[in-house]
Amino acid sequence: MKKFFSVADVDSLEAIVQEALSLKANPNAYEHLGKHKMLGLVFLNPSLRTRLSTQKAAMNLGMNVMVMNMDKDGWALETRDGVVMNGTTVEHIREAAAVMGEYCDILGLRSFPSLKDKEADYTEDLFNKFVKYCGVPVVSLESATRHPLQSLTDLITITEHKKVAKPKVVLAWAPHVKALPQAVPNSFAEWMSKAQEQGLVDFTIAHPAGYELAEEFTQGATITHNLEEALQGADFVYVKNWSSYKEYGQVYPVSDNWMLDNQKLTLTNDAKVMHCLPVRRDLELSSEILDGPNSLVIKEASNRVWAAQVVLKRMLENLNK
Amino acid sequence: MKKFFSVADVDSLEAIVQEALSLKANPNAYEHLGKHKMLGLVFLNPSLRTRLSTQKAAMNLGMNVMVMNMDKDGWALETRDGVVMNGTTVEHIREAAAVMGEYCDILGLRSFPSLKDKEADYTEDLFNKFVKYCGVPVVSLESATRHPLQSLTDLITITEHKKVAKPKVVLAWAPHVKALPQAVPNSFAEWMSKAQEQGLVDFTIAHPAGYELAEEFTQGATITHNLEEALQGADFVYVKNWSSYKEYGQVYPVSDNWMLDNQKLTLTNDAKVMHCLPVRRDLELSSEILDGPNSLVIKEASNRVWAAQVVLKRMLENLNK
Amino acid sequence: MKKFFSVADVDSLEAIVQEALSLKANPNAYEHLGKHKMLGLVFLNPSLRTRLSTQKAAMNLGMNVMVMNMDKDGWALETRDGVVMNGTTVEHIREAAAVMGEYCDILGLRSFPSLKDKEADYTEDLFNKFVKYCGVPVVSLESATRHPLQSLTDLITITEHKKVAKPKVVLAWAPHVKALPQAVPNSFAEWMSKAQEQGLVDFTIAHPAGYELAEEFTQGATITHNLEEALQGADFVYVKNWSSYKEYGQVYPVSDNWMLDNQKLTLTNDAKVMHCLPVRRDLELSSEILDGPNSLVIKEASNRVWAAQVVLKRMLENLNK
Repeated sequence: MKKFFSVADVDSLEAIVQEALSLKANPNAYEHLGKHKMLGLVFLNPSLRTRLSTQKAAMNLGMNVMVMNMDKDGWALETRDGVVMNGTTVEHIREAAAVMGEYCDILGLRSFPSLKDKEADYTEDLFNKFVKYCGVPVVSLESATRHPLQSLTDLITITEHKKVAKPKVVLAWAPHVKALPQAVPNSFAEWMSKAQEQGLVDFTIAHPAGYELAEEFTQGATITHNLEEALQGADFVYVKNWSSYKEYGQVYPVSDNWMLDNQKLTLTNDAKVMHCLPVRRDLELSSEILDGPNSLVIKEASNRVWAAQVVLKRMLENLNK
Repeated sequence: MKKFFSVADVDSLEAIVQEALSLKANPNAYEHLGKHKMLGLVFLNPSLRTRLSTQKAAMNLGMNVMVMNMDKDGWALETRDGVVMNGTTVEHIREAAAVMGEYCDILGLRSFPSLKDKEADYTEDLFNKFVKYCGVPVVSLESATRHPLQSLTDLITITEHKKVAKPKVVLAWAPHVKALPQAVPNSFAEWMSKAQEQGLVDFTIAHPAGYELAEEFTQGATITHNLEEALQGADFVYVKNWSSYKEYGQVYPVSDNWMLDNQKLTLTNDAKVMHCLPVRRDLELSSEILDGPNSLVIKEASNRVWAAQVVLKRMLENLNK
Repeated sequence: MKKFFSVADVDSLEAIVQEALSLKANPNAYEHLGKHKMLGLVFLNPSLRTRLSTQKAAMNLGMNVMVMNMDKDGWALETRDGVVMNGTTVEHIREAAAVMGEYCDILGLRSFPSLKDKEADYTEDLFNKFVKYCGVPVVSLESATRHPLQSLTDLITITEHKKVAKPKVVLAWAPHVKALPQAVPNSFAEWMSKAQEQGLVDFTIAHPAGYELAEEFTQGATITHNLEEALQGADFVYVKNWSSYKEYGQVYPVSDNWMLDNQKLTLTNDAKVMHCLPVRRDLELSSEILDGPNSLVIKEASNRVWAAQVVLKRMLENLNK
């Protein structure tokens, strides 16, 4: 594996999940694989779970880790070519990425979308340039349009907790006070769509009108504007807010009640409830669910380690070839 | 040891000091104890000595360390239950602590008091909730009301430098330009009170009227408003500013001269002078003392490593059981 | 080696370059040298290349590393003696440096000049006090007047890429939008002057009138205000902006075109082009050069690791004696 950016970078979902679960059973089994190897984690935006879980995964593999919080250093990167750099950007991504690639064997990059320039965000301009210029394998720590370590984590968590061979999985939009990226739901949708193709899940998306995700992520999914209908017989409900893709980055008023609570949960097949965190309690998701027996959110966050570790392991194995 | 929050978490003070001194004599003797163990250090407020000394202690024990500076990330935590999180807090401590507990074997937490809400500060609401929800052993890196790693350090330092079996130790209030927490003096007072009970020291507190500490910390101590009187025959003087407990967080004007200098030191038994640092020179404590032979402040700061290391060692031994 | 601050801390330039190149050929050969040793990296100003390369060098040597970003913590240091600290500085460098020296076997310090107080900057007040009070070996990570790890890197890079025994090296001033320190050009000039003395290079400096560097750094160099003249027959062109030393920290308007491009490069002996980075594209240096075959900037940045590693190796060897 030379890049981990989307579900397209993985062949068999079942195989990678099983490999992750074997790492979970034996976290230090491959600690010699990363000896003398350096992982660089570059954050253009803040991170808690992603930073800690990826750092821990790397340490389990015996790697050294260096963290660069570029958001707080005011280290503004230029990404455009052909501009005279006489403004506020202090370094071009061509040099910045290339230099980091000299010091690190593998790099991770987190970069949120602008939510203003749809084309720049959806062509993944920054992430792609970083990959192009750094010259080493890159793992996405969440990019403008995807959060693949989260989605792999989610599939691992679903696999661990499913009670039927092919569970019904529902991605359910939820309210928020801010305009959030589409990265997590896009990514979850493309992973679940592929999991559905591979016979692993049955996948439905529920959101209010106006919150349609870009079609490239939702191939094969059942899509509805009726939350109650979607919840019927659900085995897993994945709760997440996102802003509009069509009216890019906008937030439409939603009059219906889209917050999942115990009453709505009675419509499901005693569904397990998931969320990528951080979660706004009693706005996105009710406290009664988060504190009750159906919540998987902490176990899900815990599994972030094994998703990161299986990706790093595959990259290290590829390096050593 | 599952928690290190106050002197109540330690039975024999003499035993823990001797164990710390044996680690000082042989820093890497237990480096296999922390192998494959992760320490997470969470800072809601800035730190220099605490971060570096605890990191070093963990590395001496062979642990991996991850540092989270949440003060600078604007990662505002919600601690109240039952509120709709539609404001500025981005994550509830229930989730944040639980997730960190999944990635770490031991956690450290630093969180200063508000100095505005006495009840929230003195019930140690934040620290206690963090302990409750994270599910792993927690070491206080200074909380609203206590700084136990500092106090253990101070006892180690007194033990190393005492010339008599039961030295006279004086906690002496000193001036400052800001309103400071009571955590360091509270903690020093409760550790010295217990040390006095165990026959290790004779303990006196001197402060201007209005600067009384909460009584729960000062049981058994001699308390005076007369600095000169307190200094008579002192073997150690521990200099520290704090704001008022009664008029919570307030600073009363003090007309008398409470800054320790060489002249005042002549009243003592050639006392050694201590301070937890950072110290405001010639405001809290005179330069002539800090630069002279009676100052222990650097040796004291150095001992922070062994205080942290003995606490982590005891927690690791408990984990491995 | 107990201090690495200027070219005066190195005897034979050829010997240290060869030692660095042997580390490059075998990065982990000395990984037992740093076992149980702690490197502390103190940044009073931001850093990318220096932090990452020095951290990697230390890890290659088996050291532990702790990073302190004091610029962002608002941990304002007092450096003057005899002042009552009742203002904004929270700790005196006497205590801060001494404490860090207790926790670390070797320290690195980055501190930029004020560009306002020429005397304080050029007496290296802060750096010298830090060295004096910390009590352990100190490596400069760039100080007010010098950046020696960069200059050693540059000499390594020139040695690797030279096609003649004694190449012509030109330091060429370039435009910028901000007033930059003289540290990099000062340091490069003093290293190249010494390299010239030792028969390794032929050294020329080109800058507009008014941009003269302090004479202590440029002994033996040919100095001209004519860029085209300087470029004649050059084997290496080192491009860098700096502000005025005479009118300290000022920026004079420069009407001539001082940006290096491919056309100017035709005057040279197919010169390799160097820059310490970050570089402002098409302001300091043309994109066509940066993206073309004559640029060494990425290889140069990569060599930062070996410069740091040879310095740390020599300090460790001295410690262990």
